[in-house]
Amino acid sequence: MTDILTIVLGAGEGTRMKSETPKVLHKVGGRPMIGHVLAACAAAGATVRHVVVGPNHDHVRDYAKSVDSHITSSIQAERLGTGHAVMAAREAWQDFQGNVIVLLADAPLVSPDVIEDAIASLNAGADLTVVGFQTPEPFGYGRILVEHGQVKAIREEKDATPSERKIKFCNSGIIGFKAECLRTVIDEIKNDNAQGEFLLTDAIEIANAKGLKVRSVECPFMTVLGINDRGQLAEAERIFQQARRAHFMKEGVTLVAPETVFFSYDTQIENDVIVEPNVVFGPGVSIEKGAHIQAFSHLEGAHVGPAGQIGPYARLRPGTNLAAGVKVGNFVETKKAEIGEGAKLNHLSYIGDAKVGKATNIGAGTITCNYDGKNKFVTEIGDNAFIGSNSALVAPVTIADGAYVASGSVVTENVEKDALAIGRARQVNKENYATRIRARWEDKN
Amino acid sequence: MTDILTIVLGAGEGTRMKSETPKVLHKVGGRPMIGHVLAACAAAGATVRHVVVGPNHDHVRDYAKSVDSHITSSIQAERLGTGHAVMAAREAWQDFQGNVIVLLADAPLVSPDVIEDAIASLNAGADLTVVGFQTPEPFGYGRILVEHGQVKAIREEKDATPSERKIKFCNSGIIGFKAECLRTVIDEIKNDNAQGEFLLTDAIEIANAKGLKVRSVECPFMTVLGINDRGQLAEAERIFQQARRAHFMKEGVTLVAPETVFFSYDTQIENDVIVEPNVVFGPGVSIEKGAHIQAFSHLEGAHVGPAGQIGPYARLRPGTNLAAGVKVGNFVETKKAEIGEGAKLNHLSYIGDAKVGKATNIGAGTITCNYDGKNKFVTEIGDNAFIGSNSALVAPVTIADGAYVASGSVVTENVEKDALAIGRARQVNKENYATRIRARWEDKN
Amino acid sequence: MTDILTIVLGAGEGTRMKSETPKVLHKVGGRPMIGHVLAACAAAGATVRHVVVGPNHDHVRDYAKSVDSHITSSIQAERLGTGHAVMAAREAWQDFQGNVIVLLADAPLVSPDVIEDAIASLNAGADLTVVGFQTPEPFGYGRILVEHGQVKAIREEKDATPSERKIKFCNSGIIGFKAECLRTVIDEIKNDNAQGEFLLTDAIEIANAKGLKVRSVECPFMTVLGINDRGQLAEAERIFQQARRAHFMKEGVTLVAPETVFFSYDTQIENDVIVEPNVVFGPGVSIEKGAHIQAFSHLEGAHVGPAGQIGPYARLRPGTNLAAGVKVGNFVETKKAEIGEGAKLNHLSYIGDAKVGKATNIGAGTITCNYDGKNKFVTEIGDNAFIGSNSALVAPVTIADGAYVASGSVVTENVEKDALAIGRARQVNKENYATRIRARWEDKN
Repeated sequence: MTDILTIVLGAGEGTRMKSETPKVLHKVGGRPMIGHVLAACAAAGATVRHVVVGPNHDHVRDYAKSVDSHITSSIQAERLGTGHAVMAAREAWQDFQGNVIVLLADAPLVSPDVIEDAIASLNAGADLTVVGFQTPEPFGYGRILVEHGQVKAIREEKDATPSERKIKFCNSGIIGFKAECLRTVIDEIKNDNAQGEFLLTDAIEIANAKGLKVRSVECPFMTVLGINDRGQLAEAERIFQQARRAHFMKEGVTLVAPETVFFSYDTQIENDVIVEPNVVFGPGVSIEKGAHIQAFSHLEGAHVGPAGQIGPYARLRPGTNLAAGVKVGNFVETKKAEIGEGAKLNHLSYIGDAKVGKATNIGAGTITCNYDGKNKFVTEIGDNAFIGSNSALVAPVTIADGAYVASGSVVTENVEKDALAIGRARQVNKENYATRIRARWEDKN
Repeated sequence: MTDILTIVLGAGEGTRMKSETPKVLHKVGGRPMIGHVLAACAAAGATVRHVVVGPNHDHVRDYAKSVDSHITSSIQAERLGTGHAVMAAREAWQDFQGNVIVLLADAPLVSPDVIEDAIASLNAGADLTVVGFQTPEPFGYGRILVEHGQVKAIREEKDATPSERKIKFCNSGIIGFKAECLRTVIDEIKNDNAQGEFLLTDAIEIANAKGLKVRSVECPFMTVLGINDRGQLAEAERIFQQARRAHFMKEGVTLVAPETVFFSYDTQIENDVIVEPNVVFGPGVSIEKGAHIQAFSHLEGAHVGPAGQIGPYARLRPGTNLAAGVKVGNFVETKKAEIGEGAKLNHLSYIGDAKVGKATNIGAGTITCNYDGKNKFVTEIGDNAFIGSNSALVAPVTIADGAYVASGSVVTENVEKDALAIGRARQVNKENYATRIRARWEDKN
Repeated sequence: MTDILTIVLGAGEGTRMKSETPKVLHKVGGRPMIGHVLAACAAAGATVRHVVVGPNHDHVRDYAKSVDSHITSSIQAERLGTGHAVMAAREAWQDFQGNVIVLLADAPLVSPDVIEDAIASLNAGADLTVVGFQTPEPFGYGRILVEHGQVKAIREEKDATPSERKIKFCNSGIIGFKAECLRTVIDEIKNDNAQGEFLLTDAIEIANAKGLKVRSVECPFMTVLGINDRGQLAEAERIFQQARRAHFMKEGVTLVAPETVFFSYDTQIENDVIVEPNVVFGPGVSIEKGAHIQAFSHLEGAHVGPAGQIGPYARLRPGTNLAAGVKVGNFVETKKAEIGEGAKLNHLSYIGDAKVGKATNIGAGTITCNYDGKNKFVTEIGDNAFIGSNSALVAPVTIADGAYVASGSVVTENVEKDALAIGRARQVNKENYATRIRARWEDKN
């Protein structure tokens, strides 16, 4: 198989984002834009992935490395156009044998299919392949001029003749090259234009002049939605979410009000799961068959076992792992929590750095006190235990199988199997004292 | 008055739902689809309601029985078409005198009007009445062929001539029969077609051949929205919700952001109630005049009295009954709770299996400890009582009128009228001890 | 500069609102409709603002006074039309020199621009200026008849000739007068029409008869969206919210799902703030640069400092003031709370009437017990303090810098600098007691 090098151009400043965060790190579906593009490259079979980042954009390089340590990068020291960006990546392509696909990091909705189509075109004999899209409203896009199957040029709006302006087949910004072709044409691109930029699209006319084969493939419009401001970011998010919603419904997940459920790029949900309105899935969530996620729940880095009952108002934080049939109810937060089959955490609790056994019941208002201001400690609760309401479990502490903690207790010492722990003061009633308190209020007024 | 028998066909497999739950039990507006159809039948004056269910669909029968124990049912052992389904219901119609209306259980948006129109047509002399709808895009629907007012046939897409395909009047799936007519035609329906099914629509040509009167009535498209997958289920839910929202706004309810409020089929709200964004009403909710439901509230099986102040983030569970002017604030859960006029439950509390008197104040973090792992017990709090914050009330327990519970108490014994209960440890301060704790951390590092 | 008098007509009954609240006090973006109109008047440079209210609508007068005590008002004792309403405001205009703009209080989306355009028209020589809008669907609106730049009349639908009905330039309800013109024409308006009302639009023909200059200016349709029922109120809210969302995104705020975020009229947000889905901003919120507002948060009367981390499920109530880098986590409510730089309130807490110092950590389930049933008291916590989980802080109480409160404590006395406070009972374990409890359950069954 021919090797594939993908070069993702991510050096743009993104001024209209009005942000201190580099544009390509803004997120869609919980993942930075450039992460979507890199994932599409991988899915399309890229052998080598390379990113071009702007000066002082170490965060972008670091992010790419965090995705996969094999991803290489170059810095485009000045922002002098897409051709200049590819020149900046010279190290990546100068000795490369195979197909090179250049993509834009700020078009996060690109799919692997599109990249595969470009590769197929190169494999079928093209030296250079432009990825274009059809649009009824081409104004402002570079038009792709095709004659007898040969792409002759990409014409910018301002340079187009009236008849060229009628062309509805436009440049997506994605261009594929045989590596030899790229090496042949890239240094002939000049910046003798109004904006003084080296434009990668000039490669087409150069390739034509050399008698090379220049072809095009077509992609859906969505693929090329470029993000330049927060409105477009929200639009990309909307399209992303709609696609995820449709996907899950097709797979047998009920979304009562699909438009109110927000997924991350990696959310996994099995069939016969019901998701009520207003649920947010952060990254790293998987949900097994038959679970019911009630309204206003927020899940992140969490696994929900089969037939789990979650919410409403449940917050599952990273490290939450629920076995089958677990119930996590309203105003309950879990974090680094292994919860055994059939356990119930029904109300107003914080269960963090904890292990809870099978069929154990955690009463309302239970708090695992896992932090002493410096370190975190673990709470272990066995099977069939019962933690009375409003208890504070001061970690590190172990409550063994079948043990029982009386309501309102502060538990600081381990509780043995089947034992009862009580840690609360005895109640004293003072007759008529409430009357006296009220009388005192009266006196003050 | 003529008797009316409605036969609801609910035996479909619903393969595209990818569900272990029978299709017709999937819910719209908090009620199974077949429940909506059965309710429309009742509202249209059905004397007898009958359902046809699939094999191994006992849940559907049980559900129908739970709606009304008089609803009868048959099992369609094999899925051999709509005609076959009606044959399976022979017991229901063989001795019946009056009008018979056949409906589909997976079209939950049918309204009583439509059924009434079909009945009126039969009462006006038709032997058989087809309910049709007009659509600009008839592709895929069976076209209703009408000549001089007589319906001649229903022609499936694949069998239609080019000119028949232009017809925009299509079969809704609802058909009415005079009982005699049904008995005359039903057994003449054959399965000599490509799919080997007995099609109820064949009844029309058979009736024509016998010189019977076959008429049609028209219904809105929405009526016939059939649900075959989760996307269509979400679409039906959307239409259902829009109708409820429009209804409540017309009746004088403010919905700040209607598209974020979700009602159940039986939600009742009086005028001058304000509902903020993101509120979910489960089944069994009624709200009186002037109440204010703040954002992110979730109500189910609850009654809110006049001028109640609910939320944000209030969760009212079944058995909650709030008198006038009650406040239930953020992160408060109530369940089986009778709350007296003007009482306040403002923050972070669980009040379950409880009775709270008039003008009583429940402090933040109050928990009724109603469960001992096996049984539930009741907490009774009188009028004008004051429960200090972070108290645990261990049921069964009674706190009488005017009593006062000190903050942080665990209350295990009854508190008399106007008494003060304290159940907390005395505080001890250890000088410089925090410094020592921190020093220990340093040592460890 | 010429003085400007704005007269806002707000006496309408609003029967279709089905409300006991006067129509013009129903809110859009958290502000009564009439408040929006009064704000637009001020922004357009009104010298004097006057409102006309209905009988028994003291709340409307009071509201106007609360906006600005200089706002004057008249009562329109009977509802006899817009001309009658202006007559009722005689006191305001009888001695006034300058321009008079008459507006409708139930059209809350009017912008200052529109008022300024009307004023400019008067300043340019018009005696009377009608504000109109273009619409493709003019049915039901009064058409503005213009000849050679002179407005001749406003023709109601029912009185219009077929050719007049084709006019698409319609009356917005906003009319500007030179004060002298108003005084000249107003008393000539008669109620000799079918509905027996004095119509302000009749002023136009009267002015024409006197040879006065009558001009028009054009405004966007939105300006004139009049609210007559709760559906239209929701529509106005929708348009208002869309405009705010677009505004904030343009300014560099990320709205992950703009359609799920609700702003108030006065919300202030700096750039690089991220707002997750499902966030509600009540009045009086300002958020500094780089803060992150997570899903399901509700803010009202609160200031969030730079880089604050809020939510999910955080409720910030009025009087909350967070310094830089504060974290307020899930199921936490704050009210009248000054929180110092880098402090953390991460889970399930109520912090009210409180001051929390820098870098202090408030454990899960902490409650400030600020209320004794009659009065509110203050809790002061110093810098670098640590409040253990599930603690109740009974105000008035002071916890000094560096102090440490043990988990599960009830703190009723002050804690000195670097001291440790413990206020909890010692735990007792009873061997096998849980087994005995369970045995007792068995006995009962």
